[in-house]
Amino acid sequence: MPEIKKIGIITSGGDAPGMNAAVRAVTRTAASKNIEVIGFYKGYAGILDKDFVELSYSSVGGIMEKGGTILRTARVPEFKNPEIRAEAARNLKDLKVDGLVVIGGEGSLTGAKLLFEEHNIPVIGIPASIDNDIPDTDMAIGVDTCLNTAVDAMQKLKDTASSHERAFIVEVMGRGSGYIALMSGLSVGAEAVIIPEVPVDYNELTDRIWQERKRGKINCIVVVAEGAASAYSVARHFENKIGYETRITILGHIQRGGSPTAFDRILASRMGYSAVNFLLEGKFGTMVALEKGQTVTVPLEKVLSEKKVLDPKLIDLVNTLS
Amino acid sequence: MPEIKKIGIITSGGDAPGMNAAVRAVTRTAASKNIEVIGFYKGYAGILDKDFVELSYSSVGGIMEKGGTILRTARVPEFKNPEIRAEAARNLKDLKVDGLVVIGGEGSLTGAKLLFEEHNIPVIGIPASIDNDIPDTDMAIGVDTCLNTAVDAMQKLKDTASSHERAFIVEVMGRGSGYIALMSGLSVGAEAVIIPEVPVDYNELTDRIWQERKRGKINCIVVVAEGAASAYSVARHFENKIGYETRITILGHIQRGGSPTAFDRILASRMGYSAVNFLLEGKFGTMVALEKGQTVTVPLEKVLSEKKVLDPKLIDLVNTLS
Amino acid sequence: MPEIKKIGIITSGGDAPGMNAAVRAVTRTAASKNIEVIGFYKGYAGILDKDFVELSYSSVGGIMEKGGTILRTARVPEFKNPEIRAEAARNLKDLKVDGLVVIGGEGSLTGAKLLFEEHNIPVIGIPASIDNDIPDTDMAIGVDTCLNTAVDAMQKLKDTASSHERAFIVEVMGRGSGYIALMSGLSVGAEAVIIPEVPVDYNELTDRIWQERKRGKINCIVVVAEGAASAYSVARHFENKIGYETRITILGHIQRGGSPTAFDRILASRMGYSAVNFLLEGKFGTMVALEKGQTVTVPLEKVLSEKKVLDPKLIDLVNTLS
Amino acid sequence: MPEIKKIGIITSGGDAPGMNAAVRAVTRTAASKNIEVIGFYKGYAGILDKDFVELSYSSVGGIMEKGGTILRTARVPEFKNPEIRAEAARNLKDLKVDGLVVIGGEGSLTGAKLLFEEHNIPVIGIPASIDNDIPDTDMAIGVDTCLNTAVDAMQKLKDTASSHERAFIVEVMGRGSGYIALMSGLSVGAEAVIIPEVPVDYNELTDRIWQERKRGKINCIVVVAEGAASAYSVARHFENKIGYETRITILGHIQRGGSPTAFDRILASRMGYSAVNFLLEGKFGTMVALEKGQTVTVPLEKVLSEKKVLDPKLIDLVNTLS
Repeated sequence: MPEIKKIGIITSGGDAPGMNAAVRAVTRTAASKNIEVIGFYKGYAGILDKDFVELSYSSVGGIMEKGGTILRTARVPEFKNPEIRAEAARNLKDLKVDGLVVIGGEGSLTGAKLLFEEHNIPVIGIPASIDNDIPDTDMAIGVDTCLNTAVDAMQKLKDTASSHERAFIVEVMGRGSGYIALMSGLSVGAEAVIIPEVPVDYNELTDRIWQERKRGKINCIVVVAEGAASAYSVARHFENKIGYETRITILGHIQRGGSPTAFDRILASRMGYSAVNFLLEGKFGTMVALEKGQTVTVPLEKVLSEKKVLDPKLIDLVNTLS
Repeated sequence: MPEIKKIGIITSGGDAPGMNAAVRAVTRTAASKNIEVIGFYKGYAGILDKDFVELSYSSVGGIMEKGGTILRTARVPEFKNPEIRAEAARNLKDLKVDGLVVIGGEGSLTGAKLLFEEHNIPVIGIPASIDNDIPDTDMAIGVDTCLNTAVDAMQKLKDTASSHERAFIVEVMGRGSGYIALMSGLSVGAEAVIIPEVPVDYNELTDRIWQERKRGKINCIVVVAEGAASAYSVARHFENKIGYETRITILGHIQRGGSPTAFDRILASRMGYSAVNFLLEGKFGTMVALEKGQTVTVPLEKVLSEKKVLDPKLIDLVNTLS
Repeated sequence: MPEIKKIGIITSGGDAPGMNAAVRAVTRTAASKNIEVIGFYKGYAGILDKDFVELSYSSVGGIMEKGGTILRTARVPEFKNPEIRAEAARNLKDLKVDGLVVIGGEGSLTGAKLLFEEHNIPVIGIPASIDNDIPDTDMAIGVDTCLNTAVDAMQKLKDTASSHERAFIVEVMGRGSGYIALMSGLSVGAEAVIIPEVPVDYNELTDRIWQERKRGKINCIVVVAEGAASAYSVARHFENKIGYETRITILGHIQRGGSPTAFDRILASRMGYSAVNFLLEGKFGTMVALEKGQTVTVPLEKVLSEKKVLDPKLIDLVNTLS
Repeated sequence: MPEIKKIGIITSGGDAPGMNAAVRAVTRTAASKNIEVIGFYKGYAGILDKDFVELSYSSVGGIMEKGGTILRTARVPEFKNPEIRAEAARNLKDLKVDGLVVIGGEGSLTGAKLLFEEHNIPVIGIPASIDNDIPDTDMAIGVDTCLNTAVDAMQKLKDTASSHERAFIVEVMGRGSGYIALMSGLSVGAEAVIIPEVPVDYNELTDRIWQERKRGKINCIVVVAEGAASAYSVARHFENKIGYETRITILGHIQRGGSPTAFDRILASRMGYSAVNFLLEGKFGTMVALEKGQTVTVPLEKVLSEKKVLDPKLIDLVNTLS
């Protein structure tokens, strides 16, 4: 079993609420075992620039409740270049980092996997992505907070929607996945949800909405994932087809912010705590996953060879209840 | 002094959080004096269609905390036609309405003023408009809730803005007034606020932001009132001038919704209570206003002959603190 | 396979946020299959009194976001009497209820189990209990909302705790289980958590807090489950032992209220939807459970013969991170 | 006109949300005029101990949204001793502080007044007190946030109160003033409010509640100011007189915490900005007050010779609407 004296942490890719709670948990768990911790700034860029901060039990106090990430984050496209990765590996060895915790989404975990495969860097991943698009874990850090933010916003729309006769189109995040759109739409009883996974027939959709209106339904909230269509194009369909007045909301990066929910604080704390324990058990090249309510490891290779798909039962559920 | 046996209420124009609290207060204050109350649906349309509901002490229970308006609302452009107003006046007299409470913004209050001037309908207005654009009252119903909604949303952006290097452009309501943009920008320490009242020089603005960035400022949140520019056009200026990556949020009607804040519940309760008392004192053709923390009446003619302007000291304040 | 034409629903025992979302999901799923639905008021009392309401697709509109339960709830101690249960069974047969959905905690599910065993009533349970004390399901309805409520409250305490030098004692719900106390304490980084599952040594505890204070720790938040001690008795220990000024918060029933979180809305919607489908599959005498992110059935007999225990790893986690 | 080169700030007494926004506004307004700013820690204690920090434009970034006070606060009873005040005055002169901004409640402002009268220290006060008990200003910093916190909590109680048949007793802050109890009770439509200003007749109160229950009113929320009675003693009256089951919530210091509302951020920003400008105009020995929506100065001597009383119209309003 390898001895671990120093752990490095990065937060990488799109930020997600709860990343700070994970940083805190890794740091304090390591500190309880007398392991040093350093946090690199701006993800892989910090490793390349040797731009880091020493983290201690007390320096991570009061960060759990903060949105975003105190380590900041960046997308580092040059990390696709093997020579750049080699440089990162050299830097990590120079700095005597015996374990690297990578907190982020698929792109970030791919970087981790390659550092492990190519340079034998003892990495462990923690899934953080508001899109819930990471396979092999029931939930990723940030999803729950993001959903609650979207639901709170849409709930406010319902108030005003009931006062007027209009369609409200809300664009939410989700380039490749309709998870946020579907789950937030379910949570507010939206009249329709437009997602990348299911082709939309605007004729059928606007007809249905029109029939419902005639039967007395006042509210009309349509949730659209940015990966399926833009709010503006959906609005045009409504206005052209049924002459419906529409109003648009684009939530944008509000969905990435906010103090994390209890769920995300707990999930991030558990995953950060487990990441250190798994590193000590030598489970390198893996990702911490939530499975049946327990934290387990899954090889990064497996995680990254799969694609998370939306449960079709959820789609039927939304259609039945809306 | 006229005897008042029956009061009618309408909520009209754009809905504002707190309208229900005003309806409740009018109803319960009237009920305590054995005055009947009816609520017309959809503003002036309900008067024209004699579409109304009897309101009682208990029927308005549990509505105070709801956003929107249980009486629904509508814009009724045909009310600009004097014959239509004559019809409304006839209906009110048929229904033996001795006092009409009009809860809404400038358009709605103009209708009230004309009903009073042309047909001697004993009206009293209650200012409700999230834009805070109604003269002669310190605050209108809905402003405080709207501001808090905008501030909560922008605060979430700050988290994620600190994690990345980007400009975040947030479009808020305010066609004719920059009040919401200015006050919400002040409340989150936005880097810039673009409002209809002050011409914007994009060269100067983007230069300043660029200088601040070079001095180490990470966040960049720009708030824009819809009446000054669209978020997209602001974003284009940033991207073209300084190559800044931008992200857009358009809050839209979220700003009209939500359970009212304590301030709006209290303001609406006080104004509704006072409206009934002022009607009983014969103060027709007036609007209830908040002045030095007290509810007073102001003639509708005066209110509607003025234009509320943004206090220039507030603009200097925002420039100093941001 | 039995034919199901009419389903009855009760919400029973302590109310939990999300119960309404479950009622809505059962009703709309049943309605989509042309099954009639009636909701009994006040749990088993409504069955005994034949006090119920017909529920339809539209009558459950707008209830998902409401805390509490529109069907109201009650504890009915006389339901321990077999003759009373026989009467309930007769009433259900009189009313031609072919399936009974019981939404509640252990006491309520025990009633359901007995109706099934003694009178062959085709029951299915949905676990709802803010204490998360129901075995065989990862989560019960209401837990997530309750936790977020407690965390929001404690987070506010942290602000003021950092400004002063005092200990803040917060009493949360949990007669038999320390789940809420432990998870909320974890989520805010409380300095100590006192739960029924772990005996507390006040000498050791106050010594530790005192040492931390001397090392510069400003905050001191102690969370106590009502089943372990009262806030007042904890405060006395602090004041007597270390002369610490203390301040007390007792959250009380605030923890049962509030609009449900996205998690609880989704969980309740999925469980309500599945409950109807499981009834149609003849899975009587069971409870809907969340297991590995899927809804499954577990025999009520099994559920009620077990006791949910706190995962000791969670306790170690809290000790490590606090 | 005196030249001001250096300003000192303290936050003193009970903390109130918005204090940080005031510190930020004073600092940035002073910085814009090239005035140095130092913040003393723990109120007057920091002046006595010369325990302070230099504040700059950037060091107050990101503090506006935080509850509590970054300068911490303390009650310093020995400040009643003239010799101690003389020492504080000497320290301020040693440190070349040309203007002292005191942010706090009546006790803190009394200290400021004495420093001005006895030692000619150029002080200016900013009213901050969640109780809204400071005369001559429409609002003090922190009141609005406190009210919203209380209202949010009570609104959650209403959900669960409607599900059960019980009385819920909520104890809120307010030793000498019933403002918070009255305004929060108004905002949630509480069935009764017990405040120090109005003697309570428990026979009459419990009779009324009982009659309302018999007429079908389900909810029963009673708000009590800590200065009038304890929640427990109110509960005993209910249980003894009418055998009513009761449940207790004691909000405690939660009411002091939380991120400030838009109102408090704006009020604190305006008052901090004005305080600096008023100091430059030589308006020493005064307090910044909000009057008719404008910031003005009032001599501390006047403020402290008066007592703010609850507007009796507000009490009638609450009785009429509840």
